Amino acid sequence: MFSKDTYVQRRKQLCKDVEKGLILIVGNSDVSFNYPANQYTFRQDSTFRYFFGYDIQGLIGVIDVESGEEYLFGEEVDMDDIIWTGPIPSISERAEAIGVKNTGNIKDLRNLMDKSVFAGRKVHYVPPYRAENVEFIADILHLDYRFVQAYVSTELIAACVKQRSIKSEEEIVEIEKALDTAYTMHTTMMHMAAKEGTYEYQIAGTMEGIALAGGGPVSFPIILTTHGEILHGHDHSLQIKKGRMIVSDAGCENPMGYCSDITRSVPVGGKFDARQKAIYEAVLSAQLLVPTLSKPGIKYSEIHLAAVEQLGRALKEIGLMKGDIHEAVMQGAMGMFMPHGLGHMMGLDVHDMENYGENYVGYDKKNVRSTQFGLASLRLGRELQEGFVLTDEPGCYFVPALIDQWKAEKKCADFINYTEVEKFKDFGGIRIEDDLLITKDGCRFLGKYIPKTVEEIENEMAK
Amino acid sequence: MFSKDTYVQRRKQLCKDVEKGLILIVGNSDVSFNYPANQYTFRQDSTFRYFFGYDIQGLIGVIDVESGEEYLFGEEVDMDDIIWTGPIPSISERAEAIGVKNTGNIKDLRNLMDKSVFAGRKVHYVPPYRAENVEFIADILHLDYRFVQAYVSTELIAACVKQRSIKSEEEIVEIEKALDTAYTMHTTMMHMAAKEGTYEYQIAGTMEGIALAGGGPVSFPIILTTHGEILHGHDHSLQIKKGRMIVSDAGCENPMGYCSDITRSVPVGGKFDARQKAIYEAVLSAQLLVPTLSKPGIKYSEIHLAAVEQLGRALKEIGLMKGDIHEAVMQGAMGMFMPHGLGHMMGLDVHDMENYGENYVGYDKKNVRSTQFGLASLRLGRELQEGFVLTDEPGCYFVPALIDQWKAEKKCADFINYTEVEKFKDFGGIRIEDDLLITKDGCRFLGKYIPKTVEEIENEMAK
Repeated sequence: MFSKDTYVQRRKQLCKDVEKGLILIVGNSDVSFNYPANQYTFRQDSTFRYFFGYDIQGLIGVIDVESGEEYLFGEEVDMDDIIWTGPIPSISERAEAIGVKNTGNIKDLRNLMDKSVFAGRKVHYVPPYRAENVEFIADILHLDYRFVQAYVSTELIAACVKQRSIKSEEEIVEIEKALDTAYTMHTTMMHMAAKEGTYEYQIAGTMEGIALAGGGPVSFPIILTTHGEILHGHDHSLQIKKGRMIVSDAGCENPMGYCSDITRSVPVGGKFDARQKAIYEAVLSAQLLVPTLSKPGIKYSEIHLAAVEQLGRALKEIGLMKGDIHEAVMQGAMGMFMPHGLGHMMGLDVHDMENYGENYVGYDKKNVRSTQFGLASLRLGRELQEGFVLTDEPGCYFVPALIDQWKAEKKCADFINYTEVEKFKDFGGIRIEDDLLITKDGCRFLGKYIPKTVEEIENEMAK
Repeated sequence: MFSKDTYVQRRKQLCKDVEKGLILIVGNSDVSFNYPANQYTFRQDSTFRYFFGYDIQGLIGVIDVESGEEYLFGEEVDMDDIIWTGPIPSISERAEAIGVKNTGNIKDLRNLMDKSVFAGRKVHYVPPYRAENVEFIADILHLDYRFVQAYVSTELIAACVKQRSIKSEEEIVEIEKALDTAYTMHTTMMHMAAKEGTYEYQIAGTMEGIALAGGGPVSFPIILTTHGEILHGHDHSLQIKKGRMIVSDAGCENPMGYCSDITRSVPVGGKFDARQKAIYEAVLSAQLLVPTLSKPGIKYSEIHLAAVEQLGRALKEIGLMKGDIHEAVMQGAMGMFMPHGLGHMMGLDVHDMENYGENYVGYDKKNVRSTQFGLASLRLGRELQEGFVLTDEPGCYFVPALIDQWKAEKKCADFINYTEVEKFKDFGGIRIEDDLLITKDGCRFLGKYIPKTVEEIENEMAK
């Protein structure tokens, strides 16, 4: 955990930003895997962790905005349990360590909520994303569980987003630790991908083992596939074969809960062929353009457009696009090659704060989300600020179903050379991703450099 | 998956054993990790997998016991989704592959349930253990979600237990594959434990990576600890130090969903000291007694008692126990050293079928669970039958809080030499576990032999 002062300050700021009522922050509880006593590895709620620090199940924090009183609720471990669990700090010892004065059990929480709700005070909570927490909030606030999402607090969401968007120096240190582990995950992937015949799950499993041995879980289920064009795929069942690119999109959480998120795309066997090299370098040129443009005050939606325009220019050189590339971008032609956004915020969540709602995090009143295919998938569109951490992850994919659809509709036919694109239907996809910190004047890539150029990757794979 | 015929036969048998009504088998859905789109790795419900095969989220099976009609329900992937997911078989193609005739979406399921419930027919379901499935059943059967557990079907539970308790040859093959991976997990642990200073999570994480690279998750969160006396602990934060034993209790699921569950206890640094060797060999003598006694017709509760008596005799030789050991066992004295049961069933769940309720699986009308501390924790007490797969896992622990409690109460003071036991309060614990198949005349340990004697472990750790 960080120092007591960090959590005290964060809650104090939250209190300032949410003007009235009580703030209810429900930590996560264990989730059953296949029977009640067998549980998934615990994952704390990021909001709870940010303001109350603990990575332990069954805790609830409350802040009375008006009185400034703070509470930590949870059930004490009883003497019989200590035989099985070993000595465990009491709730009040835990509260003390994070500067919280008041404690109680769940019944006490219930009483406090009843008293507050019956007195007509508002209880703020952020959107729960687990059925257990939906039921808990419904129960404690006397709501129908099917309507819990309807009463979330946009004031509390805004206050959380405001603080959590700007990463402190101590948070950056933690993110860079998670990136150290990601370095080992991806270079190990490169070594394993050099040998044809391995199964995808063997590589993905080994990478996840490295994450776990680094003290945290993966920050999301690893995408490791020789079919990179399947964007929503977690299948790892295939044997890797020469001629295919592997898209490896994987990161971890470090013991403090901070994430990394890296993608590397490498040729099975260790040598890019001419076509792979051409598409790879097109994507890389877009990825490397991003840090030259990113700085406080510029909208990330503009950088997305600049990056896909760069990709488009490179694809024109290969013969896959034609005509005025700037115009092609404006008309949405690049969505066929890159149907996703350039990046997203990253912090305690790999898509940081996504449980609050993407638009609360990545957009605001001045920066409204586009509806254009491709750009509509961009999670972060608003102006960058110093302290933002975000991903830079352009990609280029040849999705057979999408090519067929667009071609049949003659969509953007002035810009897309469908005759050439057809030849790439067996290609798969490529994505390249690093994590950027926005600094006072510009930005920098975080973490240890992971081989990224064609030459560097071929050298690493030969090791 | 197994052949179509396997699933057809299993459902046919289930139909015979549940005499009336409809059987509703709800597969698992995805569970959010930290926001809706970021999910824990999917884990199918074992009952669904046993009868309907698929390891895919969002499917529900129904069997009309009287008409014999079978149904598979789920939502089709639409054309827009295929762009993101790649081609996916339809629900009816999936149903066909497992010999199910009727299909539909969730609305169709709702209609079928409404029709049946309003006609006064009983809908059988087994206890759900995830909040999402509790809510789903509540919704589909018009129940208050807080009362779903009250209406589970003991007939369906009994019918499932009857079939799933007896493992077929093809199931044994799968369990042995999961044991192959466990061999690598535990021998790797031995190599890593030879070096002082490593963190527990580095070893546990590496072991979990081996499980994942074998194509399945761990069958339960790995217990890897230099404080083996903390029985309910998944903490992996400590650096391993010479003088401590590591208890490593870990297994995996293979791609077909079958489990392994192995425990090895090894001395940090690779050499047992005299005290460790003595306790280790006491536990091993109990563990090795079990296969000499296990065969169809004998109650596993009797074998538990025989094993702890053997442990007691060995502890008497060390000076930790005294008096008549048989009498000590009868009076429950061994609970202080081994407060848990000798073993449990294993199959598609590491504690097989535990979601149905432990007593439905491990006990029956003739074999009622004991209330004696220690024996009360035994999950499997009933008569063994050919085809049972179960664990043999005695242990010996020195739990300071328990020693203090019993000593203060002078509990079993005729049998426990508290003066000597006090000296072991810094010892920790030891457990040794293998998986047994009950055969026609006796039993056999499953899987590749994993170093187990003091000599074998020291040799393996020296590699």
